[in-house]
Amino acid sequence: MSYNSFGHLFRVTTWGESHGPALGATVDGCPPGVPLSEADIQPWLDRRRPGQSRYTTQRQEPDQVEILSGVYEGRATGAPIQLMIRNQDQRSKDYSEIAEKFRPGHADIAYHLKYGLRDPRGGGRSSARETAARVAAGGVARAALAMLAPGLRVRGAMAAMGAHAVERARWDWAEVDRNPFFCPDADTAEAWGVELDAIRKAGASIGAVIEVRAEGVPPGLGAPIYGKLDADIAAALMSINAVKGVEIGAGFAAAALDGVENADEISMGPDGPVFASNHAGGILGGISTGQDVVARFAVKPTSSILTPRATITRAGEPTEIVTKGRHDPCVGIRAVPVGEAMLACVLLDHVLRDRGQTGGVRGQIG
Amino acid sequence: MSYNSFGHLFRVTTWGESHGPALGATVDGCPPGVPLSEADIQPWLDRRRPGQSRYTTQRQEPDQVEILSGVYEGRATGAPIQLMIRNQDQRSKDYSEIAEKFRPGHADIAYHLKYGLRDPRGGGRSSARETAARVAAGGVARAALAMLAPGLRVRGAMAAMGAHAVERARWDWAEVDRNPFFCPDADTAEAWGVELDAIRKAGASIGAVIEVRAEGVPPGLGAPIYGKLDADIAAALMSINAVKGVEIGAGFAAAALDGVENADEISMGPDGPVFASNHAGGILGGISTGQDVVARFAVKPTSSILTPRATITRAGEPTEIVTKGRHDPCVGIRAVPVGEAMLACVLLDHVLRDRGQTGGVRGQIG
Amino acid sequence: MSYNSFGHLFRVTTWGESHGPALGATVDGCPPGVPLSEADIQPWLDRRRPGQSRYTTQRQEPDQVEILSGVYEGRATGAPIQLMIRNQDQRSKDYSEIAEKFRPGHADIAYHLKYGLRDPRGGGRSSARETAARVAAGGVARAALAMLAPGLRVRGAMAAMGAHAVERARWDWAEVDRNPFFCPDADTAEAWGVELDAIRKAGASIGAVIEVRAEGVPPGLGAPIYGKLDADIAAALMSINAVKGVEIGAGFAAAALDGVENADEISMGPDGPVFASNHAGGILGGISTGQDVVARFAVKPTSSILTPRATITRAGEPTEIVTKGRHDPCVGIRAVPVGEAMLACVLLDHVLRDRGQTGGVRGQIG
Amino acid sequence: MSYNSFGHLFRVTTWGESHGPALGATVDGCPPGVPLSEADIQPWLDRRRPGQSRYTTQRQEPDQVEILSGVYEGRATGAPIQLMIRNQDQRSKDYSEIAEKFRPGHADIAYHLKYGLRDPRGGGRSSARETAARVAAGGVARAALAMLAPGLRVRGAMAAMGAHAVERARWDWAEVDRNPFFCPDADTAEAWGVELDAIRKAGASIGAVIEVRAEGVPPGLGAPIYGKLDADIAAALMSINAVKGVEIGAGFAAAALDGVENADEISMGPDGPVFASNHAGGILGGISTGQDVVARFAVKPTSSILTPRATITRAGEPTEIVTKGRHDPCVGIRAVPVGEAMLACVLLDHVLRDRGQTGGVRGQIG
Repeated sequence: MSYNSFGHLFRVTTWGESHGPALGATVDGCPPGVPLSEADIQPWLDRRRPGQSRYTTQRQEPDQVEILSGVYEGRATGAPIQLMIRNQDQRSKDYSEIAEKFRPGHADIAYHLKYGLRDPRGGGRSSARETAARVAAGGVARAALAMLAPGLRVRGAMAAMGAHAVERARWDWAEVDRNPFFCPDADTAEAWGVELDAIRKAGASIGAVIEVRAEGVPPGLGAPIYGKLDADIAAALMSINAVKGVEIGAGFAAAALDGVENADEISMGPDGPVFASNHAGGILGGISTGQDVVARFAVKPTSSILTPRATITRAGEPTEIVTKGRHDPCVGIRAVPVGEAMLACVLLDHVLRDRGQTGGVRGQIG
Repeated sequence: MSYNSFGHLFRVTTWGESHGPALGATVDGCPPGVPLSEADIQPWLDRRRPGQSRYTTQRQEPDQVEILSGVYEGRATGAPIQLMIRNQDQRSKDYSEIAEKFRPGHADIAYHLKYGLRDPRGGGRSSARETAARVAAGGVARAALAMLAPGLRVRGAMAAMGAHAVERARWDWAEVDRNPFFCPDADTAEAWGVELDAIRKAGASIGAVIEVRAEGVPPGLGAPIYGKLDADIAAALMSINAVKGVEIGAGFAAAALDGVENADEISMGPDGPVFASNHAGGILGGISTGQDVVARFAVKPTSSILTPRATITRAGEPTEIVTKGRHDPCVGIRAVPVGEAMLACVLLDHVLRDRGQTGGVRGQIG
Repeated sequence: MSYNSFGHLFRVTTWGESHGPALGATVDGCPPGVPLSEADIQPWLDRRRPGQSRYTTQRQEPDQVEILSGVYEGRATGAPIQLMIRNQDQRSKDYSEIAEKFRPGHADIAYHLKYGLRDPRGGGRSSARETAARVAAGGVARAALAMLAPGLRVRGAMAAMGAHAVERARWDWAEVDRNPFFCPDADTAEAWGVELDAIRKAGASIGAVIEVRAEGVPPGLGAPIYGKLDADIAAALMSINAVKGVEIGAGFAAAALDGVENADEISMGPDGPVFASNHAGGILGGISTGQDVVARFAVKPTSSILTPRATITRAGEPTEIVTKGRHDPCVGIRAVPVGEAMLACVLLDHVLRDRGQTGGVRGQIG
Repeated sequence: MSYNSFGHLFRVTTWGESHGPALGATVDGCPPGVPLSEADIQPWLDRRRPGQSRYTTQRQEPDQVEILSGVYEGRATGAPIQLMIRNQDQRSKDYSEIAEKFRPGHADIAYHLKYGLRDPRGGGRSSARETAARVAAGGVARAALAMLAPGLRVRGAMAAMGAHAVERARWDWAEVDRNPFFCPDADTAEAWGVELDAIRKAGASIGAVIEVRAEGVPPGLGAPIYGKLDADIAAALMSINAVKGVEIGAGFAAAALDGVENADEISMGPDGPVFASNHAGGILGGISTGQDVVARFAVKPTSSILTPRATITRAGEPTEIVTKGRHDPCVGIRAVPVGEAMLACVLLDHVLRDRGQTGGVRGQIG
């Protein structure tokens, strides 16, 4: 089962609450021999870390990862890798209001209905802080991919903030790490900054669309019916907090295309098949073709806002709630490294599954 | 693993090829005591059956389901239920062109790259015919839900054909079964008919958006992190042939909302919490709230079209291909019953998982 | 979950009841390219088939296997393989006594307590007839092993009938197929024949110990902690009807050894490590070493006997029962091909898992 | 997959090496509301802790468990429970000999062949120290069983040391915790003490047989074919280090019984069916009947002995090895709490699975 795990042959189980002593990821299935140390993981955590600009929550944590097992003399041994991140900025605070009232749009009421009890401190298990563990696991996945699928590269960017999307013609991957929005266009980033300042000051919030992309993906990853690579990517991205939609390649726009536009024509290149376009997002029939794998996901605006909203208490009494505290006005920003991590984990899992499924059989063309 | 299976406690494995002797679904985990016979399954297959209007493939098959195991004296025994559908309209045909050339936009090339061999007759395993087995399994899921979650109702409709969407204000569920498009509005259906006639005559194809919806969903289904109800729905719908995007509730539109609009306000009704809106699509933090579960998915236009498209042969030589034969100009139409079936299966699986997870614990409100 | 499935990457789901229209196995994960036809599977079913001597049940069935999917032009395609065996000798019979009274030592009462209903005809799902589906799946596993692990050979024998064991010094594999007991010694077989004639005439029954063995097993199969090769073998053999014990290598006798005797000394041979003995049964730390994998399992005597036994009815009334009908006086005999099949399936699964786990890494010695 | 995890709905993943900073268990699927603190787990770890008598390894560790997640205000929340035990007695030592030479009968060579590298310090992942994590997880399972299956009680004892078994007539559970062998008979314990002193002084080792037993098991746990309760118990016990055989109820002795002796007669008691004997070990057809569940497992003598044994080096050169250090002369002793823990985990898993499988349906008798 998969209450807190994902993946099959590369299997990640995250654990921990926002305000407990620590959180982490138990990573099972990293192949033996992968060069690995904290230094391979920490940069990805740093990239996700809050408090780096005024556009993300002001919670300050070093998010330092410790490898507790599974590595010996700088290499993964094949045993499970325990990644632990201690919580430090557990600001002592009165959580009685959150414990008593359900925030509209938040998981509070769903947890209450399912479990009858919950850890309300900082959102407990439902906190976006859980995604730090995903990013740490993604670091292991990237290290393993570097050994098993050299040339494979995963990256992500924020493609839209609210209704304001980056124009595709202006997309420049080099720009992504130069602004606090992972925005692939400098001008758009500047405009977003102005917009988000206003939203932040109003105590409001805004949604976003993130794009993640993998280049150098070997063909043949995935299975045709239910182990489809795109189905696994969809589940992985939809499992990120606040995500409400996922699409592959042309995605929802494909619904409006006709079959002539949509079918990517094929020719023969020096290294194999070449496609004239990539509406498919690198996946046909659930299996990678060797083209870039492209996915996008929509992140809703956080429900933690300063505008009072009508709700009820645990006793069923009507009330209203205002969520104060250190929150992200656009949670989509920090979802970029999380989406990258999920894609890296899914791809590694499928690289391993493909070996177990076919033994490396590949149909030759030409 | 899940090459050909989905679900955990209600687990469906489909098998069979388009032109083999039969196809079917092995259904494991149907609770004992569920009243079940072929008559509970056949109507859903009839709903999906091709050849019922000029807008779907003209392949003629009765798609008669046989229950080979797991039912005794009209009730499921808890043993696996084997559902078999014999193939009948296996028109003898020359498949050498499809075997030699890769259709752009089709799974042919991906299968070839992964497996090195494939059954080209009618698309073999990649044929949309596989979805008949899903619909049969969905019939079992509906029968079990009728016993375990009475009041739960799953239905679906085509929400857009190409760029032409149904206006939300005109949506009428009663209309869905009165036209060949599962369209919830009679006027739109008529317009689609005109459009699709033109597309069909041109040998072209068009995409669609399908909406599936479940009413009467018990609160508390799902798990918070990776066993999220919405992540499982996303994977289930993305696993349907030709699907390129999935969204829950407000979906991609949520990205453009602010937090005030998006958070569904809560009040207390006579039977529990009542929500002022349903941007969440019935799911918060991966767990159902008791609101309607709402999902949409985008279906690309089929790649089997009469317009010649550039491609290559297995030998890597450039060529072009025209796909003749009996194809659906809008595969989205027949995806409606398939989407419903997948949603029913996911919900039953989660009803069972919830019992195993919490033992029926429920937090009380009021 | 695994109600009716076993294996991970080579996954077998059996279905069907003793007196339903058919039974079979849905086999998922057979690698593409494996040469396969009914002729590869039928001989193993023939080996298990009842009614071949007076020492097994007189039920007469051809047990003819049909491949319904997953094979094209004589090779597995990687799609699921549906194996179906039609039931033919469903002698019409009055099952009301079995439906009303619980046979001591039989699964009747356990099914009743769990499910509240059961198919009593011939034991329904609990019938040893289910093992025909296992043997068919084992045939697929053997075909795949022939391609992926050439030189690997699985065979089995009955090592003891009741308290009468075959002397190890007299063990001759060539003898196994020359007598109706799969006995590796002609003299013992003859003595067993006399004993079993008496038991059969008395309407009694007797237990047995079966040994299964695999030669040519690649080193490195298994995982160290919970995916241990021996743990999976133990579960697979214990899942066979009527099995009450499983041991690997020296097994229970190892408990009485001292560490000097038990540790198999190692030297270097021309092709790798050579062991002076095989108390380990080819598995150390859950991982194969390249030695023969050796397992034994104990089969209890069938509870279907002519001696009246005290029991109760469904209404809880005291009564007694005599089980008439066509039964095996020593069910251990037909358990030999079943044990072989299970071992073949487990080994293939681990060959595939090993590829997914390590990518074929192997530590070199010498 | 299950490299380092076991269980389905109650899923335990252990991690950590003998001489790393810590080891532990990630426990997923503990139902919400279970009262839980370190105090519920520590006593079971204390029971397993080495260095408590001269008959176990002299390694001194407090084995103090820390709960890092999943518990709030003294109750399990349903989120994953991370149990961490820091390693303390990591005696600095020269491991170069173990790193270079393969100990006969030890997992060294199997790990080398599979992974090509291993952590040799104290056996790394193959150390029996991993079982501390199992015992901690077992403590959680016991706490959950106390809530979900009150009256269920799991206990264990050493039934034989070497060839010297406890006579069944002298078996007294009250005696088990009064001697350093978990022996259910005082006189036998005294004799074992004398024997083991001699073995220990000789630097030798001896095997053992352990019996574990659960009373108060609800009927209906398990599934008929591959999710059999006894198959899961067999796998769980076989996964413990050094175990070479597992049996249920009469076990291997059942092979020598006739059907009259073996079938446990049934009568009606005040609270349901009563059985005249328990050859079945509480399980029929893979499903619990309500009788005590009884299992035994054989533990081989440790391969870490002072007698020189022939072996080879990593370079393939012949050599011999003597294993000095702090080892258990009879590892079977400390296997008792481990076996109990595994049985508790399997039973909890099946209690949860049964809910998900049948929804609590039970056939009534009387």
